[in-house]
Amino acid sequence: MMTDLIHPFDRATALDDAGHDTRRGHTSEEYWAFLGPFGGVSSAILLRSVLEHRARVGEPLALTVNFCAPLARGEYFVTTLPLRTNRSTQHWSIVLSQGDETVLTATAVTAERRESWSHQPVPAPHRPPPEDLELFQSPTVSTWPRQYEFRFAAGALRAFEGGEQNPADSKSALWMRDATPRPLDHLALASMADAFFGRVFHAIGRVVPFGTVSLTTYFLADAQEVARHGEDRVFAIADAKRFNRSYNDQTIELWGADGTLLVTGVQVAYFKA
Amino acid sequence: MMTDLIHPFDRATALDDAGHDTRRGHTSEEYWAFLGPFGGVSSAILLRSVLEHRARVGEPLALTVNFCAPLARGEYFVTTLPLRTNRSTQHWSIVLSQGDETVLTATAVTAERRESWSHQPVPAPHRPPPEDLELFQSPTVSTWPRQYEFRFAAGALRAFEGGEQNPADSKSALWMRDATPRPLDHLALASMADAFFGRVFHAIGRVVPFGTVSLTTYFLADAQEVARHGEDRVFAIADAKRFNRSYNDQTIELWGADGTLLVTGVQVAYFKA
Repeated sequence: MMTDLIHPFDRATALDDAGHDTRRGHTSEEYWAFLGPFGGVSSAILLRSVLEHRARVGEPLALTVNFCAPLARGEYFVTTLPLRTNRSTQHWSIVLSQGDETVLTATAVTAERRESWSHQPVPAPHRPPPEDLELFQSPTVSTWPRQYEFRFAAGALRAFEGGEQNPADSKSALWMRDATPRPLDHLALASMADAFFGRVFHAIGRVVPFGTVSLTTYFLADAQEVARHGEDRVFAIADAKRFNRSYNDQTIELWGADGTLLVTGVQVAYFKA
Repeated sequence: MMTDLIHPFDRATALDDAGHDTRRGHTSEEYWAFLGPFGGVSSAILLRSVLEHRARVGEPLALTVNFCAPLARGEYFVTTLPLRTNRSTQHWSIVLSQGDETVLTATAVTAERRESWSHQPVPAPHRPPPEDLELFQSPTVSTWPRQYEFRFAAGALRAFEGGEQNPADSKSALWMRDATPRPLDHLALASMADAFFGRVFHAIGRVVPFGTVSLTTYFLADAQEVARHGEDRVFAIADAKRFNRSYNDQTIELWGADGTLLVTGVQVAYFKA
């Protein structure tokens, strides 16, 4: 079967034509979270709709995805509109819907990157050799973590008591890559930018109702630079700054093994604790 | 004149009714940047269109603004649509246009905040007493910096030679408040989240062509907590992680004088250097 040769990530993010600016997709059991597909795959689906649009110019620069409602199992439609095309940047509006329901809204910017002054002021984080770190076994019933290979250098998900009174560090640092090897691209990075457990689980030591509300991803590396990473691991960092009245922020970084910063991202999430 | 009693920020962000979900505004000379209005005021205008919408539920949680084109002097229209209203969150789509031109696109999330576990893992930054710090005199012809009082604790904007070869620290830490006192609210915070000079100017010691492309702001404090700050100064931090092929990121934090984190934000900007 031809489909066996398609990587699960490409199956989960595949889109068929369904009219002028509209594409059709189908949810995948392989990247399932609590109440719907893993947010990273949803983010990648929307980015794919931009990258495969006939009018697209440039490479991904910024992507913001708003999670309006859980995506139900089955078919969905993605409408992808280029609202403005400039000399260097192109601005996109994207809506994923099921029936009359708006499920995801997003904006994206693609950009032509020109040579310019380059500088990376942020120091690369300490990256212990992945072979010294244990392969993480996900304790959740969600299928999406099984699609990745995680090796935590710090802040692995673990259960403990009394976390509300004495919260643990909410920071994680880990190597990640696709469980089935796949060359790195911007779609993979869009998904990896959300491939973290809720910071609140890490802080209080238990899993509580949780959902990403809005997710913003910046692509700081161009396609050529990303492609050079091939199937190498990405070093990922995630932390939260404040949990307050049912919402918290999360800041992430995705680093190439060579110490170049590929992606920065933020999200705001709902939690009940 | 009644208008003399209105704060310049409220004048610059005022919107009149212009049909069902559409409001009309007019650019202000008082918050002008290089090629158009200061991005912070544009962000506040879009947030105001949400907060003043008759169907609005909850308080600001997340706001992403995409700068598609420079806003020209004169009239503009803002169309503000509630795309989805849930039990706790409401999702908004906003477009600012002039004639046939899409100038700004945005998404916002408002939320009902419920009591829950609260925790601020990030330590408050060192905040030297503002009276020990010099009042910053903006060297630019832009009018917007004059609407704020800046007192830099670190990383004040300054000109120097050879910055491309030996870049300075791109981080700034400063006290800011409205030059004309105004009680803090979410609109003021939306604007302050962009009230920084381009990180590239700080890094290379000169002003170059620059523009924000996409700006995301998370409001981590509710309206009551924000209101308690009154006309107090806000302690602001901004830094960049990577400048690469004409684009760079910026991460910001806005802190209350009492050491609570009010806002986190990111932006991706274009520069030519």
